[in-house]
Amino acid sequence: MYDLIIIGGGPAAAGAAVYAGRKLLSTLVVTKDFQGQSFVSPDIRNWIGEVSISGMDLSEKLEEHVRNQPGVTVKNDEQVNRIEKTADGYQVKSDKDSYTSRTVIVASGGRRKKLQVPGEEELDGLGVAYCATCDAPLFEDEDVAVIGAGNSALETVIDLSSYARKIYVITRGERLKGDPVNRRKVEDLPEDRLTLITNATVQAIQGEKQVEGLRYYDKSAREEKTIEVTGVFVAIGSVPNSGMVGQLVDMNTSGEIIVDHKTGLTSDSNIGAAGDVTDDPFKQNNIAVAGGIRAALSLYSRLLDMKKYSPCSEPEDCDESA
Amino acid sequence: MYDLIIIGGGPAAAGAAVYAGRKLLSTLVVTKDFQGQSFVSPDIRNWIGEVSISGMDLSEKLEEHVRNQPGVTVKNDEQVNRIEKTADGYQVKSDKDSYTSRTVIVASGGRRKKLQVPGEEELDGLGVAYCATCDAPLFEDEDVAVIGAGNSALETVIDLSSYARKIYVITRGERLKGDPVNRRKVEDLPEDRLTLITNATVQAIQGEKQVEGLRYYDKSAREEKTIEVTGVFVAIGSVPNSGMVGQLVDMNTSGEIIVDHKTGLTSDSNIGAAGDVTDDPFKQNNIAVAGGIRAALSLYSRLLDMKKYSPCSEPEDCDESA
Repeated sequence: MYDLIIIGGGPAAAGAAVYAGRKLLSTLVVTKDFQGQSFVSPDIRNWIGEVSISGMDLSEKLEEHVRNQPGVTVKNDEQVNRIEKTADGYQVKSDKDSYTSRTVIVASGGRRKKLQVPGEEELDGLGVAYCATCDAPLFEDEDVAVIGAGNSALETVIDLSSYARKIYVITRGERLKGDPVNRRKVEDLPEDRLTLITNATVQAIQGEKQVEGLRYYDKSAREEKTIEVTGVFVAIGSVPNSGMVGQLVDMNTSGEIIVDHKTGLTSDSNIGAAGDVTDDPFKQNNIAVAGGIRAALSLYSRLLDMKKYSPCSEPEDCDESA
Repeated sequence: MYDLIIIGGGPAAAGAAVYAGRKLLSTLVVTKDFQGQSFVSPDIRNWIGEVSISGMDLSEKLEEHVRNQPGVTVKNDEQVNRIEKTADGYQVKSDKDSYTSRTVIVASGGRRKKLQVPGEEELDGLGVAYCATCDAPLFEDEDVAVIGAGNSALETVIDLSSYARKIYVITRGERLKGDPVNRRKVEDLPEDRLTLITNATVQAIQGEKQVEGLRYYDKSAREEKTIEVTGVFVAIGSVPNSGMVGQLVDMNTSGEIIVDHKTGLTSDSNIGAAGDVTDDPFKQNNIAVAGGIRAALSLYSRLLDMKKYSPCSEPEDCDESA
């Protein structure tokens, strides 16, 4: 039985794992991969301490720091499907195995929202994309649409602007959101390269073997319109990966786990949660890290209180030099 | 008039400044220096993303990131003494000048506690030290005392163990605190090099032109005792630098500024606070960063609500390429 199981591989999980390791908790990290949602960002400029870092490099640094903790075991390439309460703790079930622990931190992040319109699934990878870092270079000199109005949409446009010929940005509301610095970069693109279509709802992505166009409803003109594009980048935000928690802890109507922002603990005080899976109003890498640390330190106190806890009674469990 | 004045130069201030910069707030950072309290750590192993980094290197990275923000002005080598409320915001008075702003973030950190015993001030720099990183090499083959029981004391011992001949650790309570990994490193030192003196109160640091000894009261034996040492490292924690706030915001009995841990705002909702100056139970670098970001993003919303805010109406105020 572990002291702590951490579910996830992004910044929240990394913060929790490093601190749990230093507290000599016997810790298991179960994660599909070590890629937070910003893994796809080509150029993160708000990871404090680095003027500029790619999402890929950041993920690697986080993973290295976690793997450097002697008392922390990592199960990679495993998806947790369920957490269940047992007599003396929790059972965490993945698609490969099952583990028990006294406490749990849910740091499973969020996933990109889909448009859920005809053509989106059929043409996924055939012009429909969710990751500009990965796919922008495929659209050199082509016309593409970006769906969304927030930072992830703006960053997608900025990234595409090095490749695509013309970019349509399609927003449901009346204007672009996101950081002013990003907005300005987008608005500074020449008119013949950027067309902003506001008050619009995407109805379908068209094409036989690959994307050929996009149909949307123009709410102002009250009519359907079509544009010819060979790429559609969907950047409309994310939903929390909280399904595995079931009814164990309180959630809000968006499915986000409600946490005490001082302790990082949930309505079940032996379960912590951190990062994009929670109701934290600010979905940011540095804030996720801090949430993970907070939850780990709070559960460390809980474990001491339980008096069930003897940190590394067998030193070889924790100490790599043993 | 600035949108935001940030007081401080540690990780909380850096988090706030970078995010304020990206939100194109006209921002002023006023700080004595860019040295958080962990500036003196030789080897930080819990700054998430870096397996190991010195406090000095971390401070440099934070400063570089802040100075890289076009809309952020930095006043270095200035000590803020007072914040006062004005009709439309705040006046921030330093030892050199005075500035006005619509909102403020207090990220002024804490400072090392002193023993306040005879000899401490007189022999400061003559054997009395507060920074092992800086001063440990001066005590090669000498006998030294470390006062304290927490992580900063343990790290001081670890640092000194490469230099000093014998180390006395003097604690008021019955045992060492701090992280088990640090505790183990200290307890693994050979007996002839480490003597742990518990239940002891330091009474005086002795010496004429430099430290020659230390007198303490042994609470168990109920008698005064003396040890011969040439160095005394004081590592008994810190107190919040909250004096400049006066009565503007609510504080707890320790003088820590009480914040809403979800928003990072104080009892005055146009003043945020973050890091070691607050009542955050966890005084950690990564948590301070997140607190600064939280306060900056909350005040950004406040500024938009005030409708007084037009971000960078003069682009050259913000854009370094202008």
